[in-house]
Amino acid sequence: MSTLTGVNKQITSFAPPARRLMGPGPSDIHPRVMAALSRPTIGHLDPEFVRMMDEVKELTQYAFQTTNRLSMVVSAPGSAGMETAFVNLVEPGEKVIVCRNGVFGGRMLENVLRCGGVPVIVDDAWGQPVDPEKVQAAFSSHPDAKILAFVHAETSTGVRSDAETLCQMAREHGALSIADTVTSLAGIPVLTDEWGIDAAYSGSQKCLSCVPGLSPVTLSPAAVEKVQSRKTKVQSWFLDLNLVMQYWGDGHSKRTYHHTAPVNALYAMHEALLMLQEETLENSWERHARQHQRLKIGLEALGFRFLVDEPYRLPQLNSVFLPEQVKEESHLRKRLLNEFNLEVGAGLGDLTGKIWRIGLMGHTAQPENVDFLLEALSELLH
Amino acid sequence: MSTLTGVNKQITSFAPPARRLMGPGPSDIHPRVMAALSRPTIGHLDPEFVRMMDEVKELTQYAFQTTNRLSMVVSAPGSAGMETAFVNLVEPGEKVIVCRNGVFGGRMLENVLRCGGVPVIVDDAWGQPVDPEKVQAAFSSHPDAKILAFVHAETSTGVRSDAETLCQMAREHGALSIADTVTSLAGIPVLTDEWGIDAAYSGSQKCLSCVPGLSPVTLSPAAVEKVQSRKTKVQSWFLDLNLVMQYWGDGHSKRTYHHTAPVNALYAMHEALLMLQEETLENSWERHARQHQRLKIGLEALGFRFLVDEPYRLPQLNSVFLPEQVKEESHLRKRLLNEFNLEVGAGLGDLTGKIWRIGLMGHTAQPENVDFLLEALSELLH
Repeated sequence: MSTLTGVNKQITSFAPPARRLMGPGPSDIHPRVMAALSRPTIGHLDPEFVRMMDEVKELTQYAFQTTNRLSMVVSAPGSAGMETAFVNLVEPGEKVIVCRNGVFGGRMLENVLRCGGVPVIVDDAWGQPVDPEKVQAAFSSHPDAKILAFVHAETSTGVRSDAETLCQMAREHGALSIADTVTSLAGIPVLTDEWGIDAAYSGSQKCLSCVPGLSPVTLSPAAVEKVQSRKTKVQSWFLDLNLVMQYWGDGHSKRTYHHTAPVNALYAMHEALLMLQEETLENSWERHARQHQRLKIGLEALGFRFLVDEPYRLPQLNSVFLPEQVKEESHLRKRLLNEFNLEVGAGLGDLTGKIWRIGLMGHTAQPENVDFLLEALSELLH
Repeated sequence: MSTLTGVNKQITSFAPPARRLMGPGPSDIHPRVMAALSRPTIGHLDPEFVRMMDEVKELTQYAFQTTNRLSMVVSAPGSAGMETAFVNLVEPGEKVIVCRNGVFGGRMLENVLRCGGVPVIVDDAWGQPVDPEKVQAAFSSHPDAKILAFVHAETSTGVRSDAETLCQMAREHGALSIADTVTSLAGIPVLTDEWGIDAAYSGSQKCLSCVPGLSPVTLSPAAVEKVQSRKTKVQSWFLDLNLVMQYWGDGHSKRTYHHTAPVNALYAMHEALLMLQEETLENSWERHARQHQRLKIGLEALGFRFLVDEPYRLPQLNSVFLPEQVKEESHLRKRLLNEFNLEVGAGLGDLTGKIWRIGLMGHTAQPENVDFLLEALSELLH
């Protein structure tokens, strides 16, 4: 064996700065969640771990307001949660109505195509909600559509679409519904059973304020039946719910090893979901709404304007045009980061350079954060 | 809106027991890695985080002994690292020689099938290494095979196969090689460039002793070229390296958002890889070998017998038949867990109930752990 390739002695332990996370996610983590994260690692088949997973399932049901037995946490970020929904529910050749009013609707379309699905695209402008009339028209032209997919809370624009109406339309046309609730869960109502959502996924790092890297997912009994009666194998082994279910269990059978779960991240998710249950969903929604109002008044006084019309605004994600005096948004954004350790998000796609996305998600949604941001902006703008 | 579904007041914060992890992974986590894990979360596009990612890439190159520019960490467990290799490198209709001598070779086969590849299976008995002569014969019968896939260190049996010889064979036949190094990396030599491995993936929770949930991956320039010149899209959006590379960067261009990275887990990975660099690979391999010897002597004195012939044994994963006096292995295993907080692994597949898998991986490979296990076994067996 020849000599080994050398090492770089310049690298030392990483000491991240302590930021205030007011972008589109990740959000600030509560100390209780951080403490849970760093508890001793145990095995992914340890009886104590399996017991904790059962509690995570139950807490996930609460967060999604569902009795779905298939409620669990995918061992990867929200993008993988999205892919879980599509690769399990779409069979090659099936028609899928995909609503696209931002980045994440576009990502849904990518998923449909990569599953061999036949997309029927319903486009709405970025910053607008999904138009139910266009969806109705799509179902009329494509009565054989098997799935309706839409983003409940578009992270790229901060717009909320009417999940209840859309899911009802899907049901009336015998289609399953897939709802992206990455940014909505715990920030605004997500009533899975009442609205009849068939598959919903979220992200750990938004209004749940858990560390990034996990995706809570829930599937209705009708969706599970579809997964179990597929004619073709799910194209992803890692995300195949027929296999994942055997590890997460259905309350009866023995757990079968599928992959090594991200043990410590799941401790953190357990604690974050537990804190949500302690606060209650109603209080969490109300807290997000209240801080949004506080932020809105301050931002408008400083000359910011909202991208999204009031009825469709997400309280947890505020997309705003900057005051006219600001010629270069990235300069101001960098000053917030470097001088105030405060992160806000840039625009995506056509909105790059035009808007900011200011997050008030989960633990970030506190009055002191709103006030600190407004003070910092006031200082930098005057 | 109707009343919300109720909460379960029985659930409280999870306090895991402090186990000694001597199974097939996860392994024990060093306090430095745990400390890194719980440092303050920052944004996945924060310049400080991007700088840390560059260091992770460099440290990953060291661990794999490669100069491959595409060396990074997949945001999901080792199973997703495996899937990354297959979905990116296998195009529908391509022939792939898959070596199967345990669970993970079988999983590779599943991956080939789900990618639409045409598998040529080379079977060896569980507990035996991959037989290079059979691989040679497979290439002779299938000169159009595009890829050779094998498991370097079979986690289900504790056997090491000859990666160097197998990769050379692939090269001679104009095929790319995919090596599963989940259990080998840092425990025994993995010389990616010297051996000519085209795609290798590992797991965070084995000999790197990081928290479970991440998968370091490296691809050779030839493999990258294949990914970039595919005729079909990669079937997974989440694992498409054409997109992932734009986020991890190639040292020149701006980072493009792909998905939200598991920020805190990557802090831990940075620290674990840094500790490996500080110890050096040579010392890490030597430490694993030394603790294996210590364990072997003790286990054989207690009546355990190794499944794998000596030249092919992995020091970090010891598969052993139990002493004849033990009628029910699971009973003894549970006593180790409940009375000594010590986890060892059960057998998988046909070896269920017949063997144990005793891990000495990463930070677990310390003399005090070996001695404690031997003492505990001695007490329980007499």
